[in-house]
Amino acid sequence: MKRIAILGSTGSIGTQALEVIASNPRRLKATVLTCNSRVDVLRRQIDRFRPEAVAVGRAADAAELGREYPNINIFYGPEGIREAIDDVDCDVVLNAIVGIAGLGPTFEAVNKGGLTVALANKESLVTAGRIVMKAAEESGVPIIPVDSEHSAIFQCLAGNDENSIRRLILTASGGPFRTFSRERLESVGIDDALIHPNWKMGRKITIDSATMMNKAFEIIEAKWLYGTDAGSIEVVIHPQSIVHSLVEFGDGAIMAQLGHPDMKVPISYAFSGPKRWTTDVRSLDLIALRSLYFEEPSHEARRSLDLAYRVLHESEATGRDSGVIVLNSANEELVRLFLEGKIQFVDILDTLEYLIDGHEPTAVSTISEILQTDQEAREATRERLAN
Amino acid sequence: MKRIAILGSTGSIGTQALEVIASNPRRLKATVLTCNSRVDVLRRQIDRFRPEAVAVGRAADAAELGREYPNINIFYGPEGIREAIDDVDCDVVLNAIVGIAGLGPTFEAVNKGGLTVALANKESLVTAGRIVMKAAEESGVPIIPVDSEHSAIFQCLAGNDENSIRRLILTASGGPFRTFSRERLESVGIDDALIHPNWKMGRKITIDSATMMNKAFEIIEAKWLYGTDAGSIEVVIHPQSIVHSLVEFGDGAIMAQLGHPDMKVPISYAFSGPKRWTTDVRSLDLIALRSLYFEEPSHEARRSLDLAYRVLHESEATGRDSGVIVLNSANEELVRLFLEGKIQFVDILDTLEYLIDGHEPTAVSTISEILQTDQEAREATRERLAN
Repeated sequence: MKRIAILGSTGSIGTQALEVIASNPRRLKATVLTCNSRVDVLRRQIDRFRPEAVAVGRAADAAELGREYPNINIFYGPEGIREAIDDVDCDVVLNAIVGIAGLGPTFEAVNKGGLTVALANKESLVTAGRIVMKAAEESGVPIIPVDSEHSAIFQCLAGNDENSIRRLILTASGGPFRTFSRERLESVGIDDALIHPNWKMGRKITIDSATMMNKAFEIIEAKWLYGTDAGSIEVVIHPQSIVHSLVEFGDGAIMAQLGHPDMKVPISYAFSGPKRWTTDVRSLDLIALRSLYFEEPSHEARRSLDLAYRVLHESEATGRDSGVIVLNSANEELVRLFLEGKIQFVDILDTLEYLIDGHEPTAVSTISEILQTDQEAREATRERLAN
Repeated sequence: MKRIAILGSTGSIGTQALEVIASNPRRLKATVLTCNSRVDVLRRQIDRFRPEAVAVGRAADAAELGREYPNINIFYGPEGIREAIDDVDCDVVLNAIVGIAGLGPTFEAVNKGGLTVALANKESLVTAGRIVMKAAEESGVPIIPVDSEHSAIFQCLAGNDENSIRRLILTASGGPFRTFSRERLESVGIDDALIHPNWKMGRKITIDSATMMNKAFEIIEAKWLYGTDAGSIEVVIHPQSIVHSLVEFGDGAIMAQLGHPDMKVPISYAFSGPKRWTTDVRSLDLIALRSLYFEEPSHEARRSLDLAYRVLHESEATGRDSGVIVLNSANEELVRLFLEGKIQFVDILDTLEYLIDGHEPTAVSTISEILQTDQEAREATRERLAN
C-alpha cells in the first residue's frame, strides 16, 4: 500500500489523482490532502478519502475543518503543507500545486527524503531546476514527472541509458491558435484562449498552451529532468495530442509514448512505475485514426520557444539562471492580468520578449534568491504594462 | 569485448551484422563465421574479420579453406556449426540462417548455455517456439529478436512488465502488392514480388513480405517470444515502415519504436541492449515526414494473417503445434517453387489454405518430430501442386 500526499488536491491534476487512487484501493491510500482556498471541494474529498492530515491556506478554514473533523490533523498557512507532510507517513508526495507557490513544498518533500516526489508543479523545475535536481540527488529522492509530455519521455527512457540520448522531442498540440496570424491573435479574447482542442486543464495552463509558453517551460523542465543540453531538445507540433513525446537515441532508434489524451495515464504511472496498473483508458485505434501528423511550430509559437532556448543557452554558458525565473514569473503575472481582462493576449508574449531582452542574468542558488527574483520580475512586468 | 558467432554470415543480416561489428572494434569481435555455400564472400569476411573458426556446408570447401587459412579452425557439414561454436568461446550467437535449417543451430546454442542467442532465423520460433523458449528458460539463455518488428517490441518492453501487456501491435508495410486485387495478383511475376518498397532483404523474406506470410510468421513468433495469446496480437498496415511496432499496456499507454528502416538498429541493439551504441543511422525528421499513416490489412493480406491465427488458436486450445510447422514448411517450399518459376504467386496462399484446411493437428515435442512434420508438409505441398 503506497501512502500518497496530494498537494493541491482540489485542482485538475489533484482531483484526477484521487480518481486514480479510488481505482486502486488495495494499492494506494490518500493520507494527506491540501488546498489553498477551495475548501468545499476539499470537504467532499475528506468525506470520501479519509486522509490523516489536511492543510489549507487560511486559519479560519482550518479552524472550521478542525471542528468538523476532530480525528484529522488540520494545518494551515505557509508552513501548513510541510507540517502535514511531517505529521503523516507518505511514500509519494504528488505536488499538483499551480504556480510558483509549489516551489517551497517541492523542496520540503525533497529535503525530507525517504519518499518519491511526483511532480505536476512545473515551476519547481522551471525556476529552480538546478537546485531541485541537486537536492534530490543528494537526498536520493526520485522525481517522477506527471505532465503528459515528460511522463512520456520518462516512459521512453525506462530501460534505457540516459547517456545515449540523441534528442528529446516534445510534442505540442499548438493550442487553439495554432494557425493564427499575429493579426488574428490581436483580437483573441479570454474565452477563445480557454478552449483547448485536446486537454481539459486548469485555466493558467490552458492559457500557457495557447501562447505555447507551456512548451517553452517544458523545454526548461526537460533540461533539468534529463540533464540534456537545450540544443538536444526539440519541439514538433502534433495537433492530435496522441503522441505525447519521443526520445531519439544514439543508435537512431526513437521510442515514443502514445495514447488517448488522459492524465490518468501519467498519474497512474507516477504511482505504479516502472510497473503499470490497469486503467479504464480505452485502446487506441490506429486504423480509425488513419494518421499521426506533425508540423513545424508557427512563427508565433517559435517566438515563445525561442525565449526558453535563449534563457537556457545563457544558463548553460554562464551558470546564471535568473532568466528562467524572470520568464516564469513574468508569464505567471501576465496570464493573471490577461485572465482579469486587463491586458490583451498578444501583450503576454510581447512583454516577455521585452523583459528578457532587458534582463541582465544573475546567479541564483537559494530559494529565497529565487523568490526575490520572482518578485522583482512581477514588479518589472507591472511597471512595463503601466508605461 | 563481446565475442560474436554469426551463423549465416554471408546473407543479408549476416553481412550487416559484420558492419555493426566493424563499427564497434573495441566492443565486438567476430569469432565464428558460418555459411552454407557462398564461400567467396566468406573468404573476404575471413580476410577482414579474422575469425577463430568458420563452418561451411561442403567438405570440399572446408578442405580448400583449410589450406588457405591454416590458423583458422574449419568445420563443415551438418555438425559443422555446432562444432565451430563448441570450439570457440562466444558471448552471442547471432543465428541469421534463412529457413528451417536454422532450427538445429538455435537449439545447439540454447543448449550450450552461457551465452545469448540473437535470433534472426524466424523458423526457430515459428516451428519450435514452445520447445525453444522452454529450453532457453531452462538453460537461462536470453533470446533477443533481431528482426525489425520484434526488436521494436523488445525495445518497447524494456523497463516494463510483460504481465501488463494489453496488445502487441505489429506493423506491416503491406509489401509491393498492398493495394492489389486478387485479379491483379494473378498476373504478378517473380521480379514484381522481389521489389520491396522499404527494406532490402533476402529473396525468401521479400516474397514472404509480398504474400504477408512474413507477418503471419511474426504473429507466431510474438506469441512465443512474449508469452501472449494470439488474440492479443494485432497487425496494422503502415506502408512507410517508420513505426516498427508498438505495445499497448494495461494502463492505456502505447510504447512505439520508430526510425528509418535500417537493420543496423536492431542488430546493434541485440549486441548492446539494454544500452545503445552510436550508429550512423540518421535522425528521423517528423516534420519532413508530415504524417505516419496506418490502414487495415487488405482482404488478401487478412487471408495470410488468418492462417497464423487459426494454427495458433488450435495450438492454444489443444497444445498441438503441428499446424505452425505445416504453415512454415509448406510456405518455404511454395516460395522456392515460385522463385523457380514453377508456380504462380497466388498459388502460394491458395495452397497454404488448402493444406491447413486439411491438416489434422498433432503434438510435436522434439526436433526430430518437427523435422519429420516439415518433410511431410513439403511432400504434401508438392503432391497438391502435382494434382
